[in-house]
Amino acid sequence: MQVLWLYAHPDPRSLNGALRDEGIAVLREHGHEVVESDLYAMGWDPVVGHGDFQHDPAERLDVLTESQHALETGTLSPDIRREQEKLLWSDTVIVQFPLWWFGMPAILKGWFDRLFVQGFAQGVLDPRTGRAQRYGSGGLVGRRAMVLTTVGANAATTGPRGIHGDINDTLFPLLHGTLWYPGMTVVPPLVVNGAVKLSDEEYKAAVGRLRERLLTLPETEPLAFRSQNGGDYDEHLVLRPERAAGEEGLRIHYRTDDAEEQCERTGGDEEAER
Amino acid sequence: MQVLWLYAHPDPRSLNGALRDEGIAVLREHGHEVVESDLYAMGWDPVVGHGDFQHDPAERLDVLTESQHALETGTLSPDIRREQEKLLWSDTVIVQFPLWWFGMPAILKGWFDRLFVQGFAQGVLDPRTGRAQRYGSGGLVGRRAMVLTTVGANAATTGPRGIHGDINDTLFPLLHGTLWYPGMTVVPPLVVNGAVKLSDEEYKAAVGRLRERLLTLPETEPLAFRSQNGGDYDEHLVLRPERAAGEEGLRIHYRTDDAEEQCERTGGDEEAER
Repeated sequence: MQVLWLYAHPDPRSLNGALRDEGIAVLREHGHEVVESDLYAMGWDPVVGHGDFQHDPAERLDVLTESQHALETGTLSPDIRREQEKLLWSDTVIVQFPLWWFGMPAILKGWFDRLFVQGFAQGVLDPRTGRAQRYGSGGLVGRRAMVLTTVGANAATTGPRGIHGDINDTLFPLLHGTLWYPGMTVVPPLVVNGAVKLSDEEYKAAVGRLRERLLTLPETEPLAFRSQNGGDYDEHLVLRPERAAGEEGLRIHYRTDDAEEQCERTGGDEEAER
Repeated sequence: MQVLWLYAHPDPRSLNGALRDEGIAVLREHGHEVVESDLYAMGWDPVVGHGDFQHDPAERLDVLTESQHALETGTLSPDIRREQEKLLWSDTVIVQFPLWWFGMPAILKGWFDRLFVQGFAQGVLDPRTGRAQRYGSGGLVGRRAMVLTTVGANAATTGPRGIHGDINDTLFPLLHGTLWYPGMTVVPPLVVNGAVKLSDEEYKAAVGRLRERLLTLPETEPLAFRSQNGGDYDEHLVLRPERAAGEEGLRIHYRTDDAEEQCERTGGDEEAER
């Protein structure tokens, strides 16, 4: 694998730092290449602004237009271009962070805000149809992504009926809306709960799970997100009535094992499997 | 009302800038006080780090412990304290941003990351029980919050069966996990879809909706999130089996109109209504 390891914690001596070290070590031991983006160590600037696009602050900034223009003319700010190149080099991306207020730390959110510009991760048009590619096709197809996150709360409270909401739903904007959107294949997240105070035994267990997940990553069954062009959504990009009939909520955006649905889809999902 | 208007867009000449101007003007016309945090104009630093807590970078940083210590000794960094004071002064908070990658721009996410420290918005203990207060009680009780967000995608695609996921679920980590968690009352978000290119008519309609929402804010029915101490969750903070029986997903964390549930709850929800 050619792995980009994205890491966002202010202190390398933290639980996150230790997991990062273990994870990178096991990958290298097994012959994989790893490039790291340690956002705090890099002093990464997470704030989208005029400077990203060599744009005149005296002029109104239309982020989509300016970002696409800068991408196409090679004038995106050098820190953005360096990170985009690392991402394009990779076939595997690990996104590691402590869950803060049910999302990524700002420094990491701003990595996506600044890199994922129009024409790169969104607004990538299908040359045949002229339609924007999304969810299963797009600018970052051919890469696998895994989220690794530490959570202070215990597993029951971030479980299917836990007070904080199911962690898979909490992470949906990242897993589905940010990684799957531009075409990356997304495997289930690795969540380390109770992270405020892990016992030695719990820490060892977490490291064991991490090693196992990393070494089996290429074969891991991805999250079964529906693809834009797989036939599940209508021409307005609304889920067809016969899919997850009568249901609402985030879970309708996962394919089901329903035999009829499987059968109907055969042949229509080629683009997503590409 | 005493309104704190949080605003996160890089350009005041944007749709967001126009909506912000209209919103603040209508509030002032009607005699309300408005204090603004225009994060881009302020050059707000969204990155949690040693400097927040006057912490020695040579020492390991435990964010929860250090942030609480700095809060209690009045040594949080001055920019954080100024913003906390604005928040504590307010009885109403507007959180305005363009939706970027299905979440807040980094500069705004980092406002919450840096302000909502241990002892202020989390880890606020109930003196009677010694238990952490959350979801309906906590450090920010007595305030109403409304999210105002612009979304490029059209309303169907962010609706209940739209490809992007229901916008209310996308915003759950903010509405429930960030605003409701420390005890704020949260009203339904105001979402302006199709924001990449609004016609004059659509813009006028959006301004009309905004004015109406702002002027009726004190009487608006809040989102019916369940409270931690209202009797719906068991002692492990897992939803009791008889609530939303057999269901999963984010929607189980809203109270229902089920008569039995209403009846059982009477008398147990005092703390949340405080």
